[in-house]
Amino acid sequence: MSLVVVGSIAFDAVTTPFGERKRMLGGSAVHFSLAASFFTDVRVVGPVGDDFGEDEYAVLHGRGVNTNDIEHIEGGETFFWKGHYEYDLNTAFTDDTRLNVFGDFQPKLSEESRSAENLFLANIQPDLQREVREQCADARFAGLDSMNLWIDIARDSLKSTISLVDLVFLNDAEIRMLTEQPNLARAAREVRALGPSVVVAKQGEYGAAMYTEDGYFALPAFPLEAVKDPTGAGDSFAGGFLGYLASQDDWSDEASLRRAMTYGSVIASFNVEEFGTERVSRLTREEIEERFEHFRRMTALEVAPA
Amino acid sequence: MSLVVVGSIAFDAVTTPFGERKRMLGGSAVHFSLAASFFTDVRVVGPVGDDFGEDEYAVLHGRGVNTNDIEHIEGGETFFWKGHYEYDLNTAFTDDTRLNVFGDFQPKLSEESRSAENLFLANIQPDLQREVREQCADARFAGLDSMNLWIDIARDSLKSTISLVDLVFLNDAEIRMLTEQPNLARAAREVRALGPSVVVAKQGEYGAAMYTEDGYFALPAFPLEAVKDPTGAGDSFAGGFLGYLASQDDWSDEASLRRAMTYGSVIASFNVEEFGTERVSRLTREEIEERFEHFRRMTALEVAPA
Repeated sequence: MSLVVVGSIAFDAVTTPFGERKRMLGGSAVHFSLAASFFTDVRVVGPVGDDFGEDEYAVLHGRGVNTNDIEHIEGGETFFWKGHYEYDLNTAFTDDTRLNVFGDFQPKLSEESRSAENLFLANIQPDLQREVREQCADARFAGLDSMNLWIDIARDSLKSTISLVDLVFLNDAEIRMLTEQPNLARAAREVRALGPSVVVAKQGEYGAAMYTEDGYFALPAFPLEAVKDPTGAGDSFAGGFLGYLASQDDWSDEASLRRAMTYGSVIASFNVEEFGTERVSRLTREEIEERFEHFRRMTALEVAPA
Repeated sequence: MSLVVVGSIAFDAVTTPFGERKRMLGGSAVHFSLAASFFTDVRVVGPVGDDFGEDEYAVLHGRGVNTNDIEHIEGGETFFWKGHYEYDLNTAFTDDTRLNVFGDFQPKLSEESRSAENLFLANIQPDLQREVREQCADARFAGLDSMNLWIDIARDSLKSTISLVDLVFLNDAEIRMLTEQPNLARAAREVRALGPSVVVAKQGEYGAAMYTEDGYFALPAFPLEAVKDPTGAGDSFAGGFLGYLASQDDWSDEASLRRAMTYGSVIASFNVEEFGTERVSRLTREEIEERFEHFRRMTALEVAPA
């Protein structure tokens, strides 16, 4: 079943201790789309400027992503983010943000996107997320991501948007900040009380934890010895997660959700091995299955008689 | 098979957002002993002063811990630590440390302790750890814990002590600090290259990760909604871990090690539910097995046909 994602399409300039790129394809909707494309049909919705050309479309089309709802703003420039990471790759330092065409973004969904069965609202202003959610009223499920900025300046709006979705992806500091509750298990319960049946706490190098009706599932991150660029890891994680769920008849089944979280972690682990979209754009389903199996082995308790 | 632990025996004064205790039994060797006592015979080695009396011995004896090698220093006072935690329970703030009799501690092991099959060197000066290790030359396995202080002021000594043990327990920041390697997987590999076959990275609320010859195993912490006092969590974890291993014929088997890590996490999760030794001293093996099963369920990927 098809999955539509609304979010940013960007050029990123990134420096890490392991290299740099002065201008590469990025943005939450891009990382999400590529990750999800291994499991389901994906449509991406977001604005670009005149500087967004054949090479960028080729990366998306190379993974079969439908780009008909990418809106080209004549005379505009694509959203640009410049940042760097130090040896602690968990923390991104922003050096420059130019919203450009993204600053006036008013999501316009085609009839095909409005009727997509599954929806992901990447990190944008929560009022806009809510408008999109209302345009896709019949979606089987909707997920969203957000960030500390919106918790700071648009908390109530974010809470009403959260009440309209099924799955929430936030990092653990954001879950605590949103609920003003230092205990993560309680904080996640409070977010679930707003409406969503699934709350996923992203924990960077420590992996992720999922809170559902049926309980709790936690998965470590893949123990990579060479992380080159963490940009887009969270969006790749959500993309693999929701792409897999979109392919399942019973998306809310606990076993499906656990596999979804593992596929999300698999794609995120590949994403950070190289800069930007470089690794995921040439990833194969076979590599994905191999790493999934690796995740299974590294978390198996394999209880034998004591 | 018996397990001997050498380390601190203390009185702790602890304040957390959930309560306070002005003077309670604590110390690394105490928390370790109580945790290990559910699985094997334990002997504790460490110094106490005149203020250490019947009530404190009763807690240890209540769990069957052998206290014959607790050394009573006439006219001395027991090691005292005062600290507090804020809502982020991962960080302990030290308000007062009085080493007292622990300041001149020279471990003297009885013949029975020297011939114990298994050894744990809790966090003390690494030269002392090495002396104890040499007194127990025939131990089947030896483990150690340490801290940032010794990495700072006695790095070379700590490295030689590490080269003489089989299992190392450190938090992930300490593993990075010891090796000056920001990537944890590489850093753990470098610690293993010093000699130990097992390196366990403690990660506080995120659980723990274990690096062995056969690979990698990670386990989340138990998602408690009410943590009252994290003091002693790391020592309870190591105690449950090594206590279980001491009970196994083949301690270095990967399956035994994974179960050991789970038992360690189980005991640590009970330890933090109340202050000091309050919860673990009345814990039952049945409660332990129930939570072990809970850990199994919350980490099971349960792969069904996709």
